[in-house]
Order: sequence, then C-alpha cells, then structure tokens
Amino acid sequence: MLKCSPSAQPSPFPICAHLQRLIASAGLWAPLWPAGEVVELLDQRRLPFEQVLVRVESAGAMAAAVRVMAIRGSGALGCAGAFGAYLAVRSAPADPPEWGAPLAELGAARPTAKPLQLGMREVMQAAYQAADPMVAAAEAAAGFMLRQIEIERALGQHGQALIPDGATLLTHCHSGALAGAGYGGRALSPIRAAVEAGRQVRVIAQETRPYLQGARLTAWELQQLGVRVTLVTDGMSGALMQHGDIDLCLVGSDRVAANGDLANKVGTYLIALAARAQAIPFYTATTRYTVDPDCPTGREIPIEFRPAQEVLEYNGQPIAPTGVDALYPAFDITPADLLSGIITEAGVFAPPFAPALRRLTQAER
Amino acid sequence: MLKCSPSAQPSPFPICAHLQRLIASAGLWAPLWPAGEVVELLDQRRLPFEQVLVRVESAGAMAAAVRVMAIRGSGALGCAGAFGAYLAVRSAPADPPEWGAPLAELGAARPTAKPLQLGMREVMQAAYQAADPMVAAAEAAAGFMLRQIEIERALGQHGQALIPDGATLLTHCHSGALAGAGYGGRALSPIRAAVEAGRQVRVIAQETRPYLQGARLTAWELQQLGVRVTLVTDGMSGALMQHGDIDLCLVGSDRVAANGDLANKVGTYLIALAARAQAIPFYTATTRYTVDPDCPTGREIPIEFRPAQEVLEYNGQPIAPTGVDALYPAFDITPADLLSGIITEAGVFAPPFAPALRRLTQAER
Repeated sequence: MLKCSPSAQPSPFPICAHLQRLIASAGLWAPLWPAGEVVELLDQRRLPFEQVLVRVESAGAMAAAVRVMAIRGSGALGCAGAFGAYLAVRSAPADPPEWGAPLAELGAARPTAKPLQLGMREVMQAAYQAADPMVAAAEAAAGFMLRQIEIERALGQHGQALIPDGATLLTHCHSGALAGAGYGGRALSPIRAAVEAGRQVRVIAQETRPYLQGARLTAWELQQLGVRVTLVTDGMSGALMQHGDIDLCLVGSDRVAANGDLANKVGTYLIALAARAQAIPFYTATTRYTVDPDCPTGREIPIEFRPAQEVLEYNGQPIAPTGVDALYPAFDITPADLLSGIITEAGVFAPPFAPALRRLTQAER
Repeated sequence: MLKCSPSAQPSPFPICAHLQRLIASAGLWAPLWPAGEVVELLDQRRLPFEQVLVRVESAGAMAAAVRVMAIRGSGALGCAGAFGAYLAVRSAPADPPEWGAPLAELGAARPTAKPLQLGMREVMQAAYQAADPMVAAAEAAAGFMLRQIEIERALGQHGQALIPDGATLLTHCHSGALAGAGYGGRALSPIRAAVEAGRQVRVIAQETRPYLQGARLTAWELQQLGVRVTLVTDGMSGALMQHGDIDLCLVGSDRVAANGDLANKVGTYLIALAARAQAIPFYTATTRYTVDPDCPTGREIPIEFRPAQEVLEYNGQPIAPTGVDALYPAFDITPADLLSGIITEAGVFAPPFAPALRRLTQAER
C-alpha cells in the first residue's frame, strides 16, 4: 500500500511545511496536503484499488475535485475550502477582485457542505486583512487544517472512553481520516484512539450502497490502522444485533440540528432504530463545524436526492432490467431521541442535547 | 422479453398437460413446468439479463439446480421437490428401493426449506400407494403445483383488499411468481390481484444485496405485469418513509413461527422497525406451507450464515480491499408485534396470530 503522504516538494511557507511534516511523520491519512506552492490530494473515487495523487493548482481545479467527489467528507471539504481559497488568492495575490469568481465556483461545488463554506470564509478573512495576502492565506489554510486535526484527536480522546477492550462496533458509510483532516475524521477517531490506548477493537463496516464508501474507504482505512474489519451489506445490522454481534454503533454526521437530530448517509436511521430495539448504544461523532444552529430540528435539514442512475448500476454494469427507475435519497434523519450520546471535541454530550450543542457552536473557532 | 412458457413438447399425463396449458395461457410466470416426460426450468441466476431454460431429467439434476439456486423461493422449491420426486420415480418406476438415494440428495440440497420436503413427501406417498407409481407421481406433482397456484390466487384476493388505488408499496427481496408456483408467489400475489382489479399500484423494490433478487427478479417480474417499479438500495426504506413516499410495506416469509415471528431475507426487520416508527402498515404474506408449528417463536428459527465471499464481490469484481472479511446472515427475524397482519390463503390474520396460524397449519393440505 502506498502511504498517502506529501510529495517530497516542500512548501515555502513554514506552517505549511510543518503541516507537511506532520502528515508525513505522525501516521496521518490526510485527504490533501500542501505540495510546493500548490496542493495534492488522493482521489477517493479510485481507492482502495488504485492510489492516484491529483495535483491541484487552482481554486477552479479544487472545485472540480469536489464536484466529482475525488475529495468528500465534511472535514475534508473544510480543508478543501481552506486550501481552495488559498489557491484563489495565489492566482492573483495583488488583485482581490479577481478572487471572487473562483471562490464562487468553489462554494457552489457542494452547496450543502457547511464546512466547505467555513474553511473558505476563514482563509478569505485572513487574506483580506493582510499586507501579504498569499502568505496570510497559506497560513490560515494550514492553521485551519491543523485545528481540524486537533479537533479529531480531542474527539477521539473523549470518544475512546466509550469503547471497552474487545468491543465490536458497527459503523456506516465512511467517516474517517480521509473524510476529515487526517487523524480519524469523526466516527473513526474514537476507534483509532481506543486502538492507540492498547485496546482490541473489531469494526463491522456496512458497505453503503450505491457508492460503497464503507466497503472501499472505511475498510481500507481501518486496515491501514491494523484494525480487524468485517464487511456487511446495508440490510444486515438488525440481524447482527439480534445475533449478539454488536456492542456499540458509531457513525459520523453530515449535519446535526440544534436539538441533536442528525442527518447522515442514508441507512443510518435504520441502524439507530435497530440499536434502540436491541438496547445497544448508538453514538454519533460530530464537531462544531457540523452542528447547524439554524436548523432547529431534523425536519429543517434538506435531503438531497441524487441521480437515480447511481443506484441502477455497479461500476458501469446494470443491476436491474432496462426501463426500471430508481430513487436515491442521499441522507436520512435520525431523531435525537435514538442517540445515546453525541461525541464532540468538547466531550461526550448526554441528552438533552440542545444546551450543550448551543455552547459548542458558540465556542471560539 | 421471452415468456417463460412451456416448450411445445406436450406431457403424456393429462393433468401435467393441463398444467402446461394453464402456464402457457393464463399469464403465469412459473419457475418450472412439465416438458414431455421431464421438466424445464428458468435459470433464475441469469435473469433479467439472459433467459436460459434448463432441461431437468432426473432428481439429481433437480437437486443440482436447487443447490446452485437456479431455482429458489419457498413456493418454487415446493414445486421442485414435487417434480424432483416424480423424476426419481420415473428413473426406476418398478423399483421403489432405487428411489431412496436421489430423493435423499434432493432433500439435502436445501435442508432448511420446508416446502421442498413437503412437495417431495406428497408425491412419494402417492407413488408408494399406487399400482402405476410413475403416473401417480406425475399426477401428484402436477396436483401439488396446481394447488400452489390456487393458494397464490386466494392469498392475492385476500391481500389485494389492503391495497388502495394509487398506493405505493415497499417490498424486499423477491417473493413473486418465480419464487412461487407462477401467479405471484407470496408478496407479489396481492399486488398482482390489485392490478387485475384495475387499481394503479407503484412498487418500490429494495435491491437486496448481495444477490440482488430485488433488482433482478422483483423488478423484472413487475415489469412483465406492467407495474411501475422503482429501485432503491437496502438502506433507503427509512428515508423514503420519512419523506412520505410509502403507503404500505409487503414482504414474503421464509419461515413463520407459531406466534407469528417471521424469518425473511436479511433487511426485512429494519423495514418493519421503520414502518412502526413512521406508523406505516407492514404485512407479510405466507401460506400454510411456510408456517412452522414446531417453532414456538422466532428464537427457535435457525439463521443460515452464507459464505462471506458473496458479500465481498459484485459479479466477480471485488468491492473491498483484499484481506477484509465479511459476514452474511441470510435472514433476520421480524417479531410478530411489528406486523399489522399476516396475509394467507385463508384470509388476512390480525394479531394475536397464534390461534389463526394454528388453524391454518391444521387445515387439510
């Protein structure tokens, strides 16, 4: 296996060079990293069968990578926003009006991804206020990503206390390092921290049709960490819980409403229902970047319907007779009352979630 | 599309010839049929992309077809048992001790399929008592299959009353004509009857990984009936119910315990949990051949774990990195208290189910 480490070309900016060294040395599996004055990313569509590095030299190229899902996952999109904004500044350091068009394209590449907007905004604020916008943008982008890594480590430390030695966890989709900033993203950070604390952990990964992020990315990433990983299909969580095979469920979150209702990859709600019926703890892991104080409950979170064609084929091969149509709701809503707790960088919240989530989103970024 | 009708070669036995004509003329989609003195079946593994007829000339060949799942589904396996037993008798009509070995092989081809055993037993009882065992076995096999068709029609009539005009139903796996005796099996018989009564019905079919029976067989069969069918993955039922897209859930049953607990294709339990949470009616369709009075509850129904390799690949292509293992529980248990009712050939049963199921299994076959 190729380690998704930075290329040899060092960054001219000290904090970016520090980020490069950190990614190379500390066992991080980052979705992107500075490479010289530009950015490299690992094409997540090709994993685990091919490990293809993509050189990203402009905000427009970053927008394209986001659109085609070469980079995806809420934490990773935050980093893509931050470094994409830096690339927009780099293309015309002395001419701020020129930054607008590429930034608009980047923001529109995944309009529902709040962290993408937050990463862009943070870098642009730094650039607009600075005497040397390019240096300021580079420093802000690296600072954003370093903070995400720290948040993942903190979230992992809080969450690992919930994972006993010998536990078997069920997870869904991919909410790991490559979907985050490189430590373990949301759901896999507590698992990684438990393993680093010397505990034996086994993970059951749901394959997550139709994109198979669980089969391709979660399985691959856990293999890199030396965690035993077992694949199941998206209909099997109930059977495994009935059979006594699952001790704990742990998933990420695409968006968390102010009351703790949770939008996550379609299928999450079914796991939560089965966990409640079988009296198995069910946790989500999230960060202040994913909680949306403007959504009072899950009912206000819009559900994206993706192209039906993605359901009708596997790797270009049809799976159903021609003429059949399909539906692809990308997310479902897990109501807060099915959650045992919410793991965050500020601790594990118990219900009722609203006061703790409010404090989290009001914390300094 | 090729109609899976009998070949031109007529059966020498009048009741078999009648069955042939019925299958050819009455819009049945039978999984097998008499052809001359032997049997033909449609290879369900190749559907919907290829329609391959297999000529089955011995009980051993029928056992092989069952083992490789060229024929599957509880009603169809009953017919395979009945006609397989006939083929065992045909191979040595005057020598009953010769029938034992091929029958043992056929019975062992799917040891958990109760209808397979029931079909075999009914034909052998007729053959052992008869002056002309071959004729008696042919008549008993055809009689068994004709009775299954009548049961499906009756079940369909009772069940269609639950389906309002314009309804959208969710189903899982494939519990249709090809899994039965040719009308509509268990779950699709009420849908077919509703359509024949002039109602508009739409069906959401879950793809049912890893074998994709929903994508391949349910979608194909409903297309033949002119029913609008929409494919989703196995994780999407909850999202669709939250979105208000589902009026009724209707699934088959691999085995029903005496109290109404239900073993069905893995994933069924999750649908039932979501239906309960979203206040959507959830029904199973079953027959006296699938109810097991020897299982007091679902806990006594053994869950088959199939080879992990089936989860790890699609159509021969790996979906996960090498070295990852998998689990494949083939069924899960839906507790009776999640069922709105049980649709049978004797009517739609409301809870508590035990007394009605007891009367059903005690009815004359």
